[in-house]
Amino acid sequence: MTAAPHDGQLDTGFAVLDTAREQRIGFPEVIYGEGKSAEQLVLIAQRMKERSDKLLVTRVDADKAAAVVAQAPELSYHPDAQALTGFGQALPPVVREGYVAVVCAGTSDMRIAQEAALTLEMMGSRVERIHDVGVAGIHRLFARLDVIRGADVVIAIAGMEGALPSVLGGLIAKPLIAVPTSVGYGTGLNGLIALGAMLNSCAPGVTVVNIDNGFGAAYAASNIHKSIRSER
Amino acid sequence: MTAAPHDGQLDTGFAVLDTAREQRIGFPEVIYGEGKSAEQLVLIAQRMKERSDKLLVTRVDADKAAAVVAQAPELSYHPDAQALTGFGQALPPVVREGYVAVVCAGTSDMRIAQEAALTLEMMGSRVERIHDVGVAGIHRLFARLDVIRGADVVIAIAGMEGALPSVLGGLIAKPLIAVPTSVGYGTGLNGLIALGAMLNSCAPGVTVVNIDNGFGAAYAASNIHKSIRSER
Amino acid sequence: MTAAPHDGQLDTGFAVLDTAREQRIGFPEVIYGEGKSAEQLVLIAQRMKERSDKLLVTRVDADKAAAVVAQAPELSYHPDAQALTGFGQALPPVVREGYVAVVCAGTSDMRIAQEAALTLEMMGSRVERIHDVGVAGIHRLFARLDVIRGADVVIAIAGMEGALPSVLGGLIAKPLIAVPTSVGYGTGLNGLIALGAMLNSCAPGVTVVNIDNGFGAAYAASNIHKSIRSER
Amino acid sequence: MTAAPHDGQLDTGFAVLDTAREQRIGFPEVIYGEGKSAEQLVLIAQRMKERSDKLLVTRVDADKAAAVVAQAPELSYHPDAQALTGFGQALPPVVREGYVAVVCAGTSDMRIAQEAALTLEMMGSRVERIHDVGVAGIHRLFARLDVIRGADVVIAIAGMEGALPSVLGGLIAKPLIAVPTSVGYGTGLNGLIALGAMLNSCAPGVTVVNIDNGFGAAYAASNIHKSIRSER
Amino acid sequence: MTAAPHDGQLDTGFAVLDTAREQRIGFPEVIYGEGKSAEQLVLIAQRMKERSDKLLVTRVDADKAAAVVAQAPELSYHPDAQALTGFGQALPPVVREGYVAVVCAGTSDMRIAQEAALTLEMMGSRVERIHDVGVAGIHRLFARLDVIRGADVVIAIAGMEGALPSVLGGLIAKPLIAVPTSVGYGTGLNGLIALGAMLNSCAPGVTVVNIDNGFGAAYAASNIHKSIRSER
Amino acid sequence: MTAAPHDGQLDTGFAVLDTAREQRIGFPEVIYGEGKSAEQLVLIAQRMKERSDKLLVTRVDADKAAAVVAQAPELSYHPDAQALTGFGQALPPVVREGYVAVVCAGTSDMRIAQEAALTLEMMGSRVERIHDVGVAGIHRLFARLDVIRGADVVIAIAGMEGALPSVLGGLIAKPLIAVPTSVGYGTGLNGLIALGAMLNSCAPGVTVVNIDNGFGAAYAASNIHKSIRSER
Amino acid sequence: MTAAPHDGQLDTGFAVLDTAREQRIGFPEVIYGEGKSAEQLVLIAQRMKERSDKLLVTRVDADKAAAVVAQAPELSYHPDAQALTGFGQALPPVVREGYVAVVCAGTSDMRIAQEAALTLEMMGSRVERIHDVGVAGIHRLFARLDVIRGADVVIAIAGMEGALPSVLGGLIAKPLIAVPTSVGYGTGLNGLIALGAMLNSCAPGVTVVNIDNGFGAAYAASNIHKSIRSER
Amino acid sequence: MTAAPHDGQLDTGFAVLDTAREQRIGFPEVIYGEGKSAEQLVLIAQRMKERSDKLLVTRVDADKAAAVVAQAPELSYHPDAQALTGFGQALPPVVREGYVAVVCAGTSDMRIAQEAALTLEMMGSRVERIHDVGVAGIHRLFARLDVIRGADVVIAIAGMEGALPSVLGGLIAKPLIAVPTSVGYGTGLNGLIALGAMLNSCAPGVTVVNIDNGFGAAYAASNIHKSIRSER
Repeated sequence: MTAAPHDGQLDTGFAVLDTAREQRIGFPEVIYGEGKSAEQLVLIAQRMKERSDKLLVTRVDADKAAAVVAQAPELSYHPDAQALTGFGQALPPVVREGYVAVVCAGTSDMRIAQEAALTLEMMGSRVERIHDVGVAGIHRLFARLDVIRGADVVIAIAGMEGALPSVLGGLIAKPLIAVPTSVGYGTGLNGLIALGAMLNSCAPGVTVVNIDNGFGAAYAASNIHKSIRSER
Repeated sequence: MTAAPHDGQLDTGFAVLDTAREQRIGFPEVIYGEGKSAEQLVLIAQRMKERSDKLLVTRVDADKAAAVVAQAPELSYHPDAQALTGFGQALPPVVREGYVAVVCAGTSDMRIAQEAALTLEMMGSRVERIHDVGVAGIHRLFARLDVIRGADVVIAIAGMEGALPSVLGGLIAKPLIAVPTSVGYGTGLNGLIALGAMLNSCAPGVTVVNIDNGFGAAYAASNIHKSIRSER
Repeated sequence: MTAAPHDGQLDTGFAVLDTAREQRIGFPEVIYGEGKSAEQLVLIAQRMKERSDKLLVTRVDADKAAAVVAQAPELSYHPDAQALTGFGQALPPVVREGYVAVVCAGTSDMRIAQEAALTLEMMGSRVERIHDVGVAGIHRLFARLDVIRGADVVIAIAGMEGALPSVLGGLIAKPLIAVPTSVGYGTGLNGLIALGAMLNSCAPGVTVVNIDNGFGAAYAASNIHKSIRSER
Repeated sequence: MTAAPHDGQLDTGFAVLDTAREQRIGFPEVIYGEGKSAEQLVLIAQRMKERSDKLLVTRVDADKAAAVVAQAPELSYHPDAQALTGFGQALPPVVREGYVAVVCAGTSDMRIAQEAALTLEMMGSRVERIHDVGVAGIHRLFARLDVIRGADVVIAIAGMEGALPSVLGGLIAKPLIAVPTSVGYGTGLNGLIALGAMLNSCAPGVTVVNIDNGFGAAYAASNIHKSIRSER
Repeated sequence: MTAAPHDGQLDTGFAVLDTAREQRIGFPEVIYGEGKSAEQLVLIAQRMKERSDKLLVTRVDADKAAAVVAQAPELSYHPDAQALTGFGQALPPVVREGYVAVVCAGTSDMRIAQEAALTLEMMGSRVERIHDVGVAGIHRLFARLDVIRGADVVIAIAGMEGALPSVLGGLIAKPLIAVPTSVGYGTGLNGLIALGAMLNSCAPGVTVVNIDNGFGAAYAASNIHKSIRSER
Repeated sequence: MTAAPHDGQLDTGFAVLDTAREQRIGFPEVIYGEGKSAEQLVLIAQRMKERSDKLLVTRVDADKAAAVVAQAPELSYHPDAQALTGFGQALPPVVREGYVAVVCAGTSDMRIAQEAALTLEMMGSRVERIHDVGVAGIHRLFARLDVIRGADVVIAIAGMEGALPSVLGGLIAKPLIAVPTSVGYGTGLNGLIALGAMLNSCAPGVTVVNIDNGFGAAYAASNIHKSIRSER
Repeated sequence: MTAAPHDGQLDTGFAVLDTAREQRIGFPEVIYGEGKSAEQLVLIAQRMKERSDKLLVTRVDADKAAAVVAQAPELSYHPDAQALTGFGQALPPVVREGYVAVVCAGTSDMRIAQEAALTLEMMGSRVERIHDVGVAGIHRLFARLDVIRGADVVIAIAGMEGALPSVLGGLIAKPLIAVPTSVGYGTGLNGLIALGAMLNSCAPGVTVVNIDNGFGAAYAASNIHKSIRSER
Repeated sequence: MTAAPHDGQLDTGFAVLDTAREQRIGFPEVIYGEGKSAEQLVLIAQRMKERSDKLLVTRVDADKAAAVVAQAPELSYHPDAQALTGFGQALPPVVREGYVAVVCAGTSDMRIAQEAALTLEMMGSRVERIHDVGVAGIHRLFARLDVIRGADVVIAIAGMEGALPSVLGGLIAKPLIAVPTSVGYGTGLNGLIALGAMLNSCAPGVTVVNIDNGFGAAYAASNIHKSIRSER
């Protein structure tokens, strides 16, 4: 038998949603879409809507998204970020000054970059996207350095040898969060080398999130951005 | 032959010190003491002194520290943090509002916690140290939660299974940096399990630095603290 | 050539079933369904039925289960646990006092939890299921602590950073078996991080079974429960 | 600065001892001696004595033990188990019926076996030690099977290929806890192979603790033994 | 451009077959079927036939085998071993006294056992197959010990914790070759644990081949068997 | 928002092509085809054509290649190398004296060898292909030694135990680049063993590229060949 | 308490010596000297002498050996093999025809080779030692091929990339046992690469023992040699 | 017994020196000093001197070097490179045009850089040493780019995250050999991360040698340099 549900939690039959999270932490629980069926996502969305006007579902491919939106048309799909948002217009308004720079080394890293950027926009931050500035063509990075230096927080995303955060860490003095990606092949070990390189960065002050975890980097960047800039 | 040195760099014969770093990044280059002899540290300290009034040398054991201080008495040794500082009094004044909480799970993690705390103090932040609040006696953590919640930035340090940041991440909405330590034995793999646990935290927003890297966590926390609170 | 079969063993052509196990160990051999065809499972069930009135087949997906039940209608399928049972009604009666608590951190861990719970019920123990009480929302765990503390044995199931058994181990003084799950992504390494975290738990007295091995945890818990409570 | 200590905790300056643990969990906090100096152990022992009449310190080599006992003569050293106990006579009385069997594969595993046995005796259980019964001379194991089968709980300790628990698991129906040891060389990987073998045991119902963790196995076995047999 | 072929080698366009191998080593080159198309296998078989009257192709699934036999009806398929043989009747005559015992722990290991047995038969040795005698039901192994002891060479095959060779190595004094299999799940690491266990066997004299390499074990056993027994 | 593109870069919407690379480095950017759709490859090819008369796309399987060539008929597909080239005739003329030897151990390594050879031909070098000369039949290698010794640069490709470069390194005094391949099974760990063997070669002077990286080896060999022989 | 000893076993207080092994398996238990004190070795030797006239202790460095021989002068030390033998003259007579070839790649592997050779000589086989014939100077190997081909069994020992058994396996048709050594540095991973290379040998029929396990290879070779040649 | 030595090899009792190597490969065998005693090195040096006027011994610490030079005063010690050379003056003359650039990221990598540079000088190449130009202060690298671009071959040495070769590979079109070093701590895994990063470099054309293998990189660079520039 299953013990009865309790106050402050919402039992959908397969998940006790943490509906008090928005009050406690500042944003409703974000749904990780991988491994959940379209039907489950629709059901979760309906329950979430009763408690909050914001919803973010990450890791949803185009086919599953189409099936969800067919049943829950108040959701919007963002194919570049492979994420669903709701419930109002696609994106909530920007609510604080300044911006977060999302810097990405290669075109293959871009899905992770878009997931990070969209998450930040859902949480009310403005984002500058700077892409394809990997260290093998370092002049591309220097060309964009002013935009990066103007940011309140910087997210640096790279696969392969993961060198971008080390180079950036020596050039800027802002909070810098590194995201390794599983881009690459052979001994890249699905991102473990990039992760290891970022943890061993010779530039101090780089912090790291898990492989491909654009959402997590954005969540941490949002926590910092909120601390720096009060909400309008 | 060795090519001649260049402007803006200081060639000691065995290290090109990056003397422009204080201007570019905000703090002079911090010296990693492990693997350097007392003589080398004294020489580096002398050269650094010509350019800055601040010096931080990490990973210096008591014997080596004694040998250094004997020749360079303007340096102070901090045995808990296994670090040397200079050149004025032991610690510079606090230059900004608020504080950073350095939270540590077990007594064995304390050297890393002290390295983090001292680094922050050298960079002008006030620090609250909260120690021995590991998750196996979770009432100890709850007893200190108000102090942790009052911080601008939180550093959470743990070895073994590395669960502290996950529990904290569900309780606070502040920038949170996790430091895995090499404390433990057997399959702890010298901190790799704690590192992996922190990267896989079910609480979003946790960022991670390398194993035992108290200095790196403090450097990142300082970057955030400086962004939140202007210098007095 | 294949040497002739021997007494006390049942040669089906592809498996020597250990038919004496129920007498020797207390429960007939449990069949691991993965990698066996529906036809093989039907044949094994028929042979087992001649010797025992109990059958448990784990790791059977819905399609294979349908094919098996079509040919062997005396079997029941439990989709949550992905297991088949036989031969009488779906579950045998509870035969001892007290209960085992099956505690699970996230919704994704639930299939493993159900496999554990069903195995225990097949072996005659009552089960309390407590789900979705992961450490990132630790109030959910405290809300259920009384039910957990009332159990004779506790099974704690978690993926990601696997912190649940460490927190529980500090709160209860009962036999506690931890099950890491392969839930998660990136550096979770298919459950190896959760496994490592549980082995390195700072709470003493936690024992661990293999990744996703809900059956094994239940089997061990049943051995303990049987030792504590005599059969009615 | 360090925040002030709190009720129910004992701050020695380097460790917040969890003095409420005996009430909450049933045994005072056990001290892990490795990495602590003789002076620290003496100080901890003095503080612990104010609250409990039992003390167990594991992983203390002979030299450090001599230094501790010289200052704290109410402690006894057990060289086979490399542990210190206090405060009364060397061992407390047996307080419950039945016994725990501590079974060990090779002579090199014996320190771990003795640590497990002593821990159990400190917690009030009678212990039967069965040593040097590894599977490469399996008649030695069969010669002792009656003693093993008579136990309430069995701890099986093995290094190298770690096969002992698998063989035992097929022969007995009692709670069985396996301890891998770091005995061996080459690809034994300091016990990781034995650990992996025990986790993958083809005998169901085996649970596992960390490499060389005799204390942890004993703690878990004590929890089970206490559940089975009420205290006299 | 491709340099011209040379004497003693047979260039099929995609493989230089080592046609002199039968003279040099005693058996024609065995073809590894995985990753080769049915068309490639037919072509190789035709070329091999010009030089030898024996052919062995391993790792061929039933569908590919059907396609090959349709075009090359002088080949026979052995589904248990997933291998093709040619060119005469299915198996060549036994050409030496004595036999090799192929002992296998579980039903899931049987494909590897059949590959080993068939390879030995192709090379002219008689084989005794002993299956499903894993160590968790050790009476099954003792029941077959006489047949195993009568062999000239023993091959022991096991997955999971790979304990069978250790137990056998303590019971017999014959050449003993161990084959780990990728059977199992979770931390079995696709056979690496069984491999490690066999390499770390506490029974001396066990030699090991690669995971799932039934063919390699048989080839080595055949070399030994040929040395012991002269060809009739 | 996405910041505006900059001079010297070509923004296709999903990739900032490094169009200045041919001037800076000597060959236009080579496109890695895996993970890119046929549509993306066609678009990239159109853009590249505006700037250079050479194009190389690696890792394109036959189906995707057919779809690309249908829309971009000025491209040629090389099925052995799984690569597309453009824009003129299939291969540009040889522009320097001497040749590079591409030596490969087994037939399964040949796709990598062909990728290396084609890349060199695209870059204007003549290539001698020597295949199927693995060390288990070492006479095959000696038969081709004169051709290998006549080369300006040698690329040695091997999977399994990766021994070919060690043997070659003791026989020739030319620049020698080793390529491990993911050929093999079991503990080959997808090429990591071959990679490790090559890095640990007892023959000095062997340099190594990533697993299966025929293109990278060829690129490095071309850099060397260009340095040795001036362009005609 | 320790349960009483049993028949057929010899309890020294710290080891139950398997004194029946010589009858059962053909050679008395060999003592692994590493981690045992000189005193323990002397005691074991005295007890062994009561039951057998042969003793072999491996892994004894020169200092410990001197201490043992001082107390037990009937033992002989073999510094090249780092082993002690007893009790008669240094080596027992050769008792069978033919010989075993112990082939070793580099000078650093020689201790392992000598351990293997001495073990074989203790077991009554004649040994031919062929050293320093690694594959980077392959002419050295060919110069000794006749001696190797004349052996009944071949042991091939190599560190670094471990290629020697692969080359030998293609040249001879005799039982061939490979021993990886921990010689090398960097990514050799203390012999794991050589082990992996040997397991993945492209030459069939190679069997492998653990890293640095010269004794184990010799024990297996002796089992084979005894099967081939009857005792004189 | 040990089989007799053969022509063209020099048997010192513990090493068959490959004295024909200078003719075959172009440089006498280089001695790896680690693990060899001073006495062995003196003996090897004496034997080598009979055949060549060049000697290079790598990995010799200062104490061992002093002991060697005391007995063999015709040898010179190079403490920065931890190497011994002989027999004439410290270094042979430069014999070819152009130079090799040895570029190194951090001061801790310098021993490896000096080993590489000295090896090249022993082989007759001129060397430009560029040190402390790691990517965290990338202006230091740009300041030296002209010297690097003027080289015939470039060796890039880095520990930590190993990013230097990736950045260099995008800036130059010369043969480029990367050397990972074991500098760093925590998850640097003794250089495995730097090695992995270099193998996964996003800049094509980078080849890699083993961790800390400055000698191997120099040997490969010398092979290339010799091919480019004829000897004077």
